[in-house]
Amino acid sequence: MSASVSLRRLDASASDFAECLDHLLSWESVSDDTVNARVLEIIRAVRERGDSAVVEFTRRFDGLEVADMKDLILPRERLEQALSRISSEQRSALETAAERVRRYHERQKQDSWSYTEADGTVLGQQVVPLDRAGLYVPGGKASYPSSVLMNAIPAKVAGVPEVVMVVPTPRGEINELVLAAAAVAGVDRVFTIGGAQAVAALAYGTESVPPVDKIVGPGNIYVATAKRHVFGKVGIDMIAGPSEILVVCDGGTDPDWIAMDLFSQAEHDEDAQAILVSPDAAFLDRVHESVARLLPTLERASIAQASIEARGALIHVRDMNEAIEVANRIAPEHLELSVDAPEQYLPLIRHAGAIFMGRYTAEALGDYCAGPNHVLPTSGTARFSSPLGVYDFQKRSSIIHCSADGASELGKTASILARGESLTAHARSAEYRIKP
Amino acid sequence: MSASVSLRRLDASASDFAECLDHLLSWESVSDDTVNARVLEIIRAVRERGDSAVVEFTRRFDGLEVADMKDLILPRERLEQALSRISSEQRSALETAAERVRRYHERQKQDSWSYTEADGTVLGQQVVPLDRAGLYVPGGKASYPSSVLMNAIPAKVAGVPEVVMVVPTPRGEINELVLAAAAVAGVDRVFTIGGAQAVAALAYGTESVPPVDKIVGPGNIYVATAKRHVFGKVGIDMIAGPSEILVVCDGGTDPDWIAMDLFSQAEHDEDAQAILVSPDAAFLDRVHESVARLLPTLERASIAQASIEARGALIHVRDMNEAIEVANRIAPEHLELSVDAPEQYLPLIRHAGAIFMGRYTAEALGDYCAGPNHVLPTSGTARFSSPLGVYDFQKRSSIIHCSADGASELGKTASILARGESLTAHARSAEYRIKP
Repeated sequence: MSASVSLRRLDASASDFAECLDHLLSWESVSDDTVNARVLEIIRAVRERGDSAVVEFTRRFDGLEVADMKDLILPRERLEQALSRISSEQRSALETAAERVRRYHERQKQDSWSYTEADGTVLGQQVVPLDRAGLYVPGGKASYPSSVLMNAIPAKVAGVPEVVMVVPTPRGEINELVLAAAAVAGVDRVFTIGGAQAVAALAYGTESVPPVDKIVGPGNIYVATAKRHVFGKVGIDMIAGPSEILVVCDGGTDPDWIAMDLFSQAEHDEDAQAILVSPDAAFLDRVHESVARLLPTLERASIAQASIEARGALIHVRDMNEAIEVANRIAPEHLELSVDAPEQYLPLIRHAGAIFMGRYTAEALGDYCAGPNHVLPTSGTARFSSPLGVYDFQKRSSIIHCSADGASELGKTASILARGESLTAHARSAEYRIKP
Repeated sequence: MSASVSLRRLDASASDFAECLDHLLSWESVSDDTVNARVLEIIRAVRERGDSAVVEFTRRFDGLEVADMKDLILPRERLEQALSRISSEQRSALETAAERVRRYHERQKQDSWSYTEADGTVLGQQVVPLDRAGLYVPGGKASYPSSVLMNAIPAKVAGVPEVVMVVPTPRGEINELVLAAAAVAGVDRVFTIGGAQAVAALAYGTESVPPVDKIVGPGNIYVATAKRHVFGKVGIDMIAGPSEILVVCDGGTDPDWIAMDLFSQAEHDEDAQAILVSPDAAFLDRVHESVARLLPTLERASIAQASIEARGALIHVRDMNEAIEVANRIAPEHLELSVDAPEQYLPLIRHAGAIFMGRYTAEALGDYCAGPNHVLPTSGTARFSSPLGVYDFQKRSSIIHCSADGASELGKTASILARGESLTAHARSAEYRIKP
């Protein structure tokens, strides 16, 4: 049984292709005035009243009958307990994934460096971890243990002494896999709070929740809006848009594999985007057929269908060079190069969050356990940003240690430039160090 | 002749010290509703009407009688001309500074990396420069050639092919030193536009202005607000607060030097913050005396006095350890360790934009020509962010290339985790790659 799936078909040689592609990709997340006002009110209340405001919002929004902040703290033993409640197969999968993610991220760790000039002046950068990081984990259906691993492990690899996780438990629902992942990832403290109130608590601190230096992790529109508002007080990761995959295929991969790869994004939510680009028109037909045949077999068929029909596309290109051009134009979160000898195209790829090379590298492998991070730039932001990494939990301080000779020489240059800017206190401060 | 300067004195052992310090440091930049509304209107107009809106706003806000966007483009020859109009001393100082900044930043460049696992799976990251960067340079009195060097050189060292500079020229005022610095730094294109309209043009592009991937550089409240609004469409650097210096001195440096170092921040603007911390109470008195004596000799005396009185402080501490504690609490943009053997304190410094070590390293040397960047995290954001650097103009794509064996093994783990998250299309996409 096949579903009738309306799947957009574009041709890169059409005169209106650029316009059609722009339209297909257009996406702007807008926090409307109502959301903004509510979030600002919540932040203000948490800043002013701390724990009591957090407890009040948690009662109201999560339907939890809690009396006190103490009821919203999960002790470390509770995480360990979760590890024993999940299946041994699941525990082992979590541990395997964590180990691979840890090993990959170890390679990203950056060290302090310095060099000494001829006159003894030392220049460099001191690289240190943040003091404390906050990890937001959504509750309910979008509560993913893999996200806990992907956000917490880079922080721990960076050397962040304290990783604080918040996860709402609406109506008391606790996801044991999420708690188990927190145990495996080495999360230090967990509060069962969520929404804008959790973001505000992490940013400003309360009597019970320690203020963090950076907040990472996905969330709904209230969480995203709150993160935008506290940005500056603390660091944040990118505000993520819907998930996207762009598959470039030369026509040589099993069309069912490609269809399922497209579905693996489309099943996330109705706004997710799954696009296939190929120079082989007949192959596009075969994938369309696979999509129609496999769709009814999916557990999340209605979500996948809505996503495929609203934002999916099959794009025909002249050749692989044009396929790569389209990929760079899209700057996708996930780029699958399901082709022979994919290495040859790597130097041509300018913009992509993650590149999955060859027919065997399903994007889902990267989502869970290949090692690289699954927190990736969406909505074309791969043009200027990078996967979440250890570098997001490290920071640098410049080091300048001038010798007396160095300061004397540099002082002459600084003096001229400072006077050119009419900043004469700068100039005089430098001139004091010039040898007579 | 000494001025009567009211300079706040704090004692770290006082019971209300933490509170007083919090109050002293408190700073929030707020874009009020009027500014927000005007900026949003300008951005909308530039997105809709491109060049013509930019020309219209430039006529209105910069008082320039221009008819066409062509009048707002500075050709490369004009930059070269500026180089011949400044003094040879100034040209040589710019070139010396640029060369040192370039040499330091070369050390920050990051390379692609990868490793191969036993089963042939390749993992890594591809590191590439942004395609195009935008550099905002303020007009009028805050138009600093040193900022051009500090923002443009890291981009060029990263390998950004095109650096586009915007600088307003209110009533036709052009700063030759700024244009000369642009020539020395290798800026590729210059438009004489400014304000929110210039930020909008860089973010969205117009018929004449190419859209960039990231916008860096300081600006007034309209520019900062516009940068906040276009963040997400493009990358931005941090929104800078007022400049700050924290000097930690053991009492062994000439108090006039320290006073002038404090003034070198205080002269920036009335909101700038200059603080001295010392375990030597008598030394604090001597610096106070130097401040009072030197203040009347400053060209920007009234600005410096306003800054010192509103936001400056002399802080007495028990010992150097307490001084370092105070420094970490403040997380200053600039930290001067004007002490003997400053290296011993370096491992204890957790939060600072730049660390100026020893009695000779005046902060002003770092502002112009020591080599490290002078664009640094302000207002305590050194807790989670870093100096502007080459890394801000590079970005990373994860690389995952699974062998058939690797995909088969990883598929098993991915399948278990995906099913644990009820994402069964993810699971099936991974399972296709498991060998039978």
